[in-house]
Amino acid sequence: MEEKEGNKIPLKIQKGITHPSNINPVVMTGSIRKKRKKYSVDEFVKGILSGNRTILSQSITMIESSLPEHYDIAQEIIERCLPHSSGSVRIAITGAPGAGKSTFIESFGLNLADSGKKIAVLAIDPSSTNTRGSILGDKTRMERLGVHQNAFIRPSPSDGTLGGVARKTRESIILCEAAGFDTVLVETVGVGQSEIAARSMVDFFLLLMLAGSGDEIQGIKRGIIEMADTIVITKADGQNKIAAENARITFQNALNLFPATHSGWKPLVLTCSAYEGKGISEIWKVIGNYINYTGTTGYFEELRKQQAVIRMHDTITDHLRSSFYNHDKVKALLPVLEKELYSGTVTSYKAALNLLNKYFNE
Amino acid sequence: MEEKEGNKIPLKIQKGITHPSNINPVVMTGSIRKKRKKYSVDEFVKGILSGNRTILSQSITMIESSLPEHYDIAQEIIERCLPHSSGSVRIAITGAPGAGKSTFIESFGLNLADSGKKIAVLAIDPSSTNTRGSILGDKTRMERLGVHQNAFIRPSPSDGTLGGVARKTRESIILCEAAGFDTVLVETVGVGQSEIAARSMVDFFLLLMLAGSGDEIQGIKRGIIEMADTIVITKADGQNKIAAENARITFQNALNLFPATHSGWKPLVLTCSAYEGKGISEIWKVIGNYINYTGTTGYFEELRKQQAVIRMHDTITDHLRSSFYNHDKVKALLPVLEKELYSGTVTSYKAALNLLNKYFNE
Repeated sequence: MEEKEGNKIPLKIQKGITHPSNINPVVMTGSIRKKRKKYSVDEFVKGILSGNRTILSQSITMIESSLPEHYDIAQEIIERCLPHSSGSVRIAITGAPGAGKSTFIESFGLNLADSGKKIAVLAIDPSSTNTRGSILGDKTRMERLGVHQNAFIRPSPSDGTLGGVARKTRESIILCEAAGFDTVLVETVGVGQSEIAARSMVDFFLLLMLAGSGDEIQGIKRGIIEMADTIVITKADGQNKIAAENARITFQNALNLFPATHSGWKPLVLTCSAYEGKGISEIWKVIGNYINYTGTTGYFEELRKQQAVIRMHDTITDHLRSSFYNHDKVKALLPVLEKELYSGTVTSYKAALNLLNKYFNE
Repeated sequence: MEEKEGNKIPLKIQKGITHPSNINPVVMTGSIRKKRKKYSVDEFVKGILSGNRTILSQSITMIESSLPEHYDIAQEIIERCLPHSSGSVRIAITGAPGAGKSTFIESFGLNLADSGKKIAVLAIDPSSTNTRGSILGDKTRMERLGVHQNAFIRPSPSDGTLGGVARKTRESIILCEAAGFDTVLVETVGVGQSEIAARSMVDFFLLLMLAGSGDEIQGIKRGIIEMADTIVITKADGQNKIAAENARITFQNALNLFPATHSGWKPLVLTCSAYEGKGISEIWKVIGNYINYTGTTGYFEELRKQQAVIRMHDTITDHLRSSFYNHDKVKALLPVLEKELYSGTVTSYKAALNLLNKYFNE
């Protein structure tokens, strides 16, 4: 499917473009970037709602910017896009390195894009702070999906803390949805904290695993398996086919022992081969079943509303903590108290109160 | 074992005493309580260190008190007991209602107490706020352990929030250890939040389950299974024996599929019968193996130190949040913004910033 287009486009991409979302010349990197047209908030919103991806890209850049003037514009854009951001499905896709995430997302995304779905691929990866995009940043990845007319791929924002990266991803989801993307895939790296952040912004959580001599779980942090709405054993082809099917049965039996998810949904385990194109459309069917099921029970809408409220409280906590830990006297005293805690000469509670007194009686 | 004593003591207890830790007349409830001797901090500390349980009980009452003067005294007592509180093993014991927690703790505790261990049993149960002790508060529970000379049972503190209850349990652990109790069992109710609190204060996490036609997991919240260092299938006796053994094998196979715990320890699944007294001493052996293993790797000490630091930060966050959410303007605006979030007309981030501005520019 789309083999011709897939073969053709990479030649275009190789002309020094850093990632697939930059294929539009208006958002080229380097010196050309400076000549970018400045839009008003009205123009941004109009552009996004009309599905203009150049403007969508630039709006996301505003979200990711650390400049205060960009921040204000971004917030206004988001606010105005918010009423137009419903009707989509948000799916987290995670897995340890080597589980075949990019290959899977390309195959899964192309399958959906070819069937008329509009796919946005975003990422949460705080580790990309240093490398500027350890996931979704590599131009050799998802080449065919990246240039599909129904797809939009955006690498992980390259700023700082997990909280910051997660907020930017959440806000980018809203803009993508307002731009008409009806299926949003959020890729994470399987290290634990990113998955908790992703879980709080998606409808469905998909965990990818590679079967092989019992080390399926290599690189996956404890706790992630229990987050999954569905586990997919990847690379179920060739010599690996039997091992994948065995892993599927084993994990399905194990998951059946676990309490149901909050939604009441019983997690499934499937196999797929991106290489042979097998099992991909079945995964979409399962997600469809989940959407129908949670739609009927009302859980789907309720979860989204809850997520919005939880996110507000999380943001508040982040800010309160940040204000506290950046306080001069707290910064001076904290290492001393941590040392005392380590040696067991002060209680956690008294150390905390000591710091809180410094903070509130500045 | 101790059958005679077990039969004899309950008669004593029935004289209007509310819980087993109150068997000493000095801490009687009601009007007699008012005549309790007032100790100085020095006397409290000396009494605790000499293993006087009347004084230990009263110190814990100070920890649980909401009076400011008690608070200051309690903190000083804890601080001075802290250097004497090492060398113990702290074990969380959780399970859904019906899993046989009390029966297990009585049997397990008696086994240890008879072998010379000194056992303290505490509880985290925020739900007891209303009922004044839904766990460990029932005088008919753990009758024999409650009167054993090597055991000390304290019901869940009956004050408010989970954070408050958890802090009091943590601080009570320190006093119990300083009083010479070398094995501290912390009972929780299996509802989720209490287990996270318990996990942060113990060395070992034990999950009790009842086998039976596939509903072992009834009442257990998702996520708790992955916290367990060991799962025990209870009531493995009579007609239930085969089902219990089957459940053991099934869960052991399932747990083997999961990533190792942070300590590197691979969780085990065991069966036991408190009724027949079978499998109880094996559980202690497994805990011993865990202590040895994590002692050798250094994880045991490291975890305790980490827990102390984490608890300090948790306490700080609790206070910051409490200060924020009790702010008058925040209290007034919050319901309005939550309504807007529910209807999707404001972003979580903007709602949070709105509230934060009110708070910081009071």
